[in-house]
Amino acid sequence: MKSKVIDLNCDMGESFGSWTLGNDETLMTMISSANIACGFHAGDATIMRETAALALKNGVAIGAHPAFPDLQGFGRRNMQLSSQEVYDICVFQIGAMLGTVRALGGKLHHVKPHGALYNMAAKDPNLANAIALATKAIHPELILYGLSGSHLISEAEKIGLKTASEVFADRTYQNDGSLTPRTQPNAMIENIQEAVNQVIMMIEKQCVISTDGKEVSLKANTVCIHGDGIHAVSFVNELRKELLLRNILIETI
Amino acid sequence: MKSKVIDLNCDMGESFGSWTLGNDETLMTMISSANIACGFHAGDATIMRETAALALKNGVAIGAHPAFPDLQGFGRRNMQLSSQEVYDICVFQIGAMLGTVRALGGKLHHVKPHGALYNMAAKDPNLANAIALATKAIHPELILYGLSGSHLISEAEKIGLKTASEVFADRTYQNDGSLTPRTQPNAMIENIQEAVNQVIMMIEKQCVISTDGKEVSLKANTVCIHGDGIHAVSFVNELRKELLLRNILIETI
Amino acid sequence: MKSKVIDLNCDMGESFGSWTLGNDETLMTMISSANIACGFHAGDATIMRETAALALKNGVAIGAHPAFPDLQGFGRRNMQLSSQEVYDICVFQIGAMLGTVRALGGKLHHVKPHGALYNMAAKDPNLANAIALATKAIHPELILYGLSGSHLISEAEKIGLKTASEVFADRTYQNDGSLTPRTQPNAMIENIQEAVNQVIMMIEKQCVISTDGKEVSLKANTVCIHGDGIHAVSFVNELRKELLLRNILIETI
Amino acid sequence: MKSKVIDLNCDMGESFGSWTLGNDETLMTMISSANIACGFHAGDATIMRETAALALKNGVAIGAHPAFPDLQGFGRRNMQLSSQEVYDICVFQIGAMLGTVRALGGKLHHVKPHGALYNMAAKDPNLANAIALATKAIHPELILYGLSGSHLISEAEKIGLKTASEVFADRTYQNDGSLTPRTQPNAMIENIQEAVNQVIMMIEKQCVISTDGKEVSLKANTVCIHGDGIHAVSFVNELRKELLLRNILIETI
Repeated sequence: MKSKVIDLNCDMGESFGSWTLGNDETLMTMISSANIACGFHAGDATIMRETAALALKNGVAIGAHPAFPDLQGFGRRNMQLSSQEVYDICVFQIGAMLGTVRALGGKLHHVKPHGALYNMAAKDPNLANAIALATKAIHPELILYGLSGSHLISEAEKIGLKTASEVFADRTYQNDGSLTPRTQPNAMIENIQEAVNQVIMMIEKQCVISTDGKEVSLKANTVCIHGDGIHAVSFVNELRKELLLRNILIETI
Repeated sequence: MKSKVIDLNCDMGESFGSWTLGNDETLMTMISSANIACGFHAGDATIMRETAALALKNGVAIGAHPAFPDLQGFGRRNMQLSSQEVYDICVFQIGAMLGTVRALGGKLHHVKPHGALYNMAAKDPNLANAIALATKAIHPELILYGLSGSHLISEAEKIGLKTASEVFADRTYQNDGSLTPRTQPNAMIENIQEAVNQVIMMIEKQCVISTDGKEVSLKANTVCIHGDGIHAVSFVNELRKELLLRNILIETI
Repeated sequence: MKSKVIDLNCDMGESFGSWTLGNDETLMTMISSANIACGFHAGDATIMRETAALALKNGVAIGAHPAFPDLQGFGRRNMQLSSQEVYDICVFQIGAMLGTVRALGGKLHHVKPHGALYNMAAKDPNLANAIALATKAIHPELILYGLSGSHLISEAEKIGLKTASEVFADRTYQNDGSLTPRTQPNAMIENIQEAVNQVIMMIEKQCVISTDGKEVSLKANTVCIHGDGIHAVSFVNELRKELLLRNILIETI
Repeated sequence: MKSKVIDLNCDMGESFGSWTLGNDETLMTMISSANIACGFHAGDATIMRETAALALKNGVAIGAHPAFPDLQGFGRRNMQLSSQEVYDICVFQIGAMLGTVRALGGKLHHVKPHGALYNMAAKDPNLANAIALATKAIHPELILYGLSGSHLISEAEKIGLKTASEVFADRTYQNDGSLTPRTQPNAMIENIQEAVNQVIMMIEKQCVISTDGKEVSLKANTVCIHGDGIHAVSFVNELRKELLLRNILIETI
């Protein structure tokens, strides 16, 4: 019997200039895919190079992690850009990441939009289409990572891009398969074991239990690991142990 | 007898957001190579795409025009970056331009550093080496444009890059082949006919008359056209007429 | 009989670095209040000083013109900031403008938010309140300029700030007194005479005819002059002539 | 007998957006003057407000800490700006800080330039003069903090500004009273006791022992505490104990 496989992805390279953020050195040894910030919400040219080099050293697949131009807001504030503007900033950022990886002798593997751009595009087919087109324009083999069941996935598929449906370990879900907004008190799963259990269910049964107790179908190709939490490393350790026990391999898409 | 050939290059895409600069539409029909700003001193993702599309439409070779991160100062203020930092910002900017051109189905042709980065690197072999290495790392066939006789040319040649030795139509020269600093009153050639004459001499005789009246050898592969002057279009018109008369072809490197 | 009085205000200092925008030199001789960009959507420290000096020279009242931090989008793209963040960026920008004016020996007179911040706050009492509080915190005598009938005016009045109700010469109005969105074809008044007539009616009758032909009441303390249009100067000339004929004085609030 | 008095100053508010730096909460209880970043090298409008509020709560005098516009380089990279440009960016930043403090009901106390701007101005009377003029233009009672014996002090005195001569606890000195450049191995004093001893000598004897063993005169009004080192808090604790023992009061200028 063929083993089940799951991709663990994590946002990386989210330091900037003199400021550091995250546990990149440690987490890079524990995941299979890294989404590296491209300078618009975090990261700068030097950090991009260092982070991409770290990924290559650890055999981790490298993705571009484009965002709105909002360094102060860490790309988490909604901005009203036209689809054309979104296309353009994605081409720019994915291109900059492509150049960085190529200069290191590596290969760019995927694209995952960041923060507000990710969330807005998940719900807006025009933005999703713009991101998918930009990804394809840079290289048709690039894989678009997006929220399971969202417009990011459907728009990418429409234009023939390979996709990775993403699920979240530490976020709760609504009946319609969307994430519970962070503004609600039960949005986050704080307990490590609960988060591990949710991930295992999502991988093995391709479903999740909503905050209403309903079983909701979803597709789980890749699990998003949040690297900036206090328990990030402990959580990934627990998750990796459980995956090992269940014979689920950690591999990129 | 084989015709003489010269490349005419011009800085392009130096608008930003709502602000416009230059005569890109007109000049793009008159030159053979465009150095397109990469967002650090001018240009943004949208303007980069529009300018690269304009170049492709006119059959003009596209170059990345990386600069110091200094939007307010238009990249003209010296900044003290390490060689590693210069390497990194060049990889980032050339990568972003590569992505932009690739998304349009075109090909990146060359790299020409901008403003203070150009001038500092011309005199500093470490900076010149960093720019050359970044260029080569993105693609070994990229051509580095640099001041004739400067470290930009020699460092690029050392690592096996193809180069284009650049001369200036509207700048006067010193006995050592360097440009007269803009702080001096006789730095600029305002008269169109004088500028045309200087260019013709540089192409046909590969030399120039210094401000001291001395004949100074140089290599002229490409002539820099300043696009933002009032007389830019008139000057290029006159230059093109004179080149035509003398059977000198305008072609990129 | 006391003469009627109207304030003509214009956005000024919206150049940036090497890029110029507008007709500040000319328009500054024709208006009574200048809203000077504070570096977030346009303007930089040098341009702020130069523009404020120009206003002082012409006896024009100086206002701070704070905006979202969006240089590329010229502050015209909606951004989702918290009320606290809006308060903070307004304090920063008004403070920077206050310092600039004070360094010239002048006095800051008013605050008018720019672009998307102006439009969002006109409709959102929380943002309007944040802007009003920031204005008052810098100096309780500062006057807040805002769209006639909007939350900007009502929130400012609630906390005891003096206000100036603003009307637009070249924009059409809806039945509810709001501006026709720029996305609609009849949003702009292109004809100079029509724009002049609209202004005169707004001043003399404190009302406007909506796009549906309905007479809509409004309050007109100050007329916004758009300085970047091709006909800006001609329009203001015509308007000033008409105001003179009707014995309406041009004076700041 | 009157007690000796010394000011302890520390750079504060050097976080940015989502990134944090320093031990502001703790150190603010241990110093007498805070130099708060103004958004050009670090800090943003929100962090400025929070940091100024923290200073007010702790009775710490607030200074503006203007810098070159270089967020990525933390204001530590030399930039070649004209004196006029330096004047303008200082007016802007001091003005923004003044507004922030005023909005909190507090008072701005001093100005201390940051990083490369501090170091370049210490050696260049034109830059020092520009900073002093900007400081005075914002408010003639503001105190300029500058390196003991440098042009910052002399230029400020020339135009009648009050000054604070600054000395460094953890930096070694040359025979001419300048700091040993950071590029040299013995630039830093790592040992806490040595640093404390140097400070005590500088306060009590107004001199320091250079790296060559020579006694060099200087003026010590204020001691710079570096807040970002690992041992920052321990060092200040030791220093405060020693000052207490010797009956030296910690008070702002």
